[in-house]
Amino acid sequence: MKRIMCVVKYDGSGFNGYQRQPGLRTVQGEIEKALEKIAKKPITIHSSGRTDAGVHANGQVFHFDTEGAMDGCRYARAFKSLLPDDIFIVSSQEVDKGFHARYHGKIKEYRYQLSLNAYAPIRRNYTYFHPRNLDIEAMREAMAHLVGTHDFTSFCGIIDESDKVRTIFEANLYEDEGELTFQFVGNGFLRYMIRIMVGTLIAVGDGRKSAKDIPLIITGRNRKLAGLTAKPQGLYLEYVKYPQEVMEQTAFPFSGIE
Amino acid sequence: MKRIMCVVKYDGSGFNGYQRQPGLRTVQGEIEKALEKIAKKPITIHSSGRTDAGVHANGQVFHFDTEGAMDGCRYARAFKSLLPDDIFIVSSQEVDKGFHARYHGKIKEYRYQLSLNAYAPIRRNYTYFHPRNLDIEAMREAMAHLVGTHDFTSFCGIIDESDKVRTIFEANLYEDEGELTFQFVGNGFLRYMIRIMVGTLIAVGDGRKSAKDIPLIITGRNRKLAGLTAKPQGLYLEYVKYPQEVMEQTAFPFSGIE
Repeated sequence: MKRIMCVVKYDGSGFNGYQRQPGLRTVQGEIEKALEKIAKKPITIHSSGRTDAGVHANGQVFHFDTEGAMDGCRYARAFKSLLPDDIFIVSSQEVDKGFHARYHGKIKEYRYQLSLNAYAPIRRNYTYFHPRNLDIEAMREAMAHLVGTHDFTSFCGIIDESDKVRTIFEANLYEDEGELTFQFVGNGFLRYMIRIMVGTLIAVGDGRKSAKDIPLIITGRNRKLAGLTAKPQGLYLEYVKYPQEVMEQTAFPFSGIE
Repeated sequence: MKRIMCVVKYDGSGFNGYQRQPGLRTVQGEIEKALEKIAKKPITIHSSGRTDAGVHANGQVFHFDTEGAMDGCRYARAFKSLLPDDIFIVSSQEVDKGFHARYHGKIKEYRYQLSLNAYAPIRRNYTYFHPRNLDIEAMREAMAHLVGTHDFTSFCGIIDESDKVRTIFEANLYEDEGELTFQFVGNGFLRYMIRIMVGTLIAVGDGRKSAKDIPLIITGRNRKLAGLTAKPQGLYLEYVKYPQEVMEQTAFPFSGIE
């Protein structure tokens, strides 16, 4: 048995999200369909995490186990002719059997694209258009409050008893001629967390909320305190990083995934 | 009777081209469907020219006549809620009854996007991916031969007796980290002309043809001498410009369309 790890890019526009669902077109479903053709039997893949409908990935990671004799590095090419053109396997390699795409993926970067410029049809699935001025400095000040280890219950789309504590290592907002990029690097993100953070930051930029409200929203631990959930099409999973010690255990160590 | 001129952007990916065709989704068909709802009767629109399936527009121009009382400038907003999200009317205005989007559109700019970088699913409908090195300087040298007034029969996808003489005022090739933009400004372009020029320039960049071949390809007046027709998804109609004297005759003169 071999464990194979793949890095995959996809355009989320045409999928009902990442996770396999009967009768619906999903990223996992399409990859498993192609993998079944390669392996001649059904194989389940395990990703670093799900992405919602409409969300894109530039560096999602998944692994699977196979009895096949083919070299790990050859899967990327084998997938190429079998996958639809909105999914692209960037690389594949054999990893240690102890490697797990989800459990070991300890650093993730997401980006969110927001445009303050006029609507452009060719970018409608790839950017959230908000053609009004926003106070960028106030948004940056608000973002700084999100960095650190917090209970993010107020920024989570699901109400349950699970642990809502996460750490955001870095949060930046770049602006280039009305095109905003929100960058979040953390040890994991709750469901809708980035989109709710962005929705809240838009409220700060609009003046409906203030940067000083963010610490109160966090400590309030109540979804109603935060802003709206920003639309999915602006969101990109950029990469997943695995700790050096996990990668050193792999049969084919590598320095990073990016 | 009023004549209204509109500037429109569209994402060509989801259309069977620009021109109305029974039973097929086209740009003209969708705009006329929306216009019928505004005007309460069918109205034909007249564009600066057709674009092929998969080709995008950032500044296509069309006009139509109406008996409606509504101000010309209000059509853009009226269209907004009636058009699908892959068509966007940038502006609308009343123009002189002598104005014609096709006959008076005497300068057009097209751009073609080609990427030498690795395939990215989110850009598959907006760029042609050619992940191999090209000799940019040889391509620029070849492009310079296309500028001027020539019989472009060799670069036309249709064989008929019509006049194939066109003037290219400007042809530039920009390169930014493996992303190439071909810019062509001319007094009109034949069917597939830009895509055949780009296909021929790729052959020059690949070393299969030489820049010095271009004058011979032009004078040979034979489609077989030129290169392949590059894929439609990289092509954008950027703008159409109308002569100052035409615009000055309009009821609401404006300095330019860009």
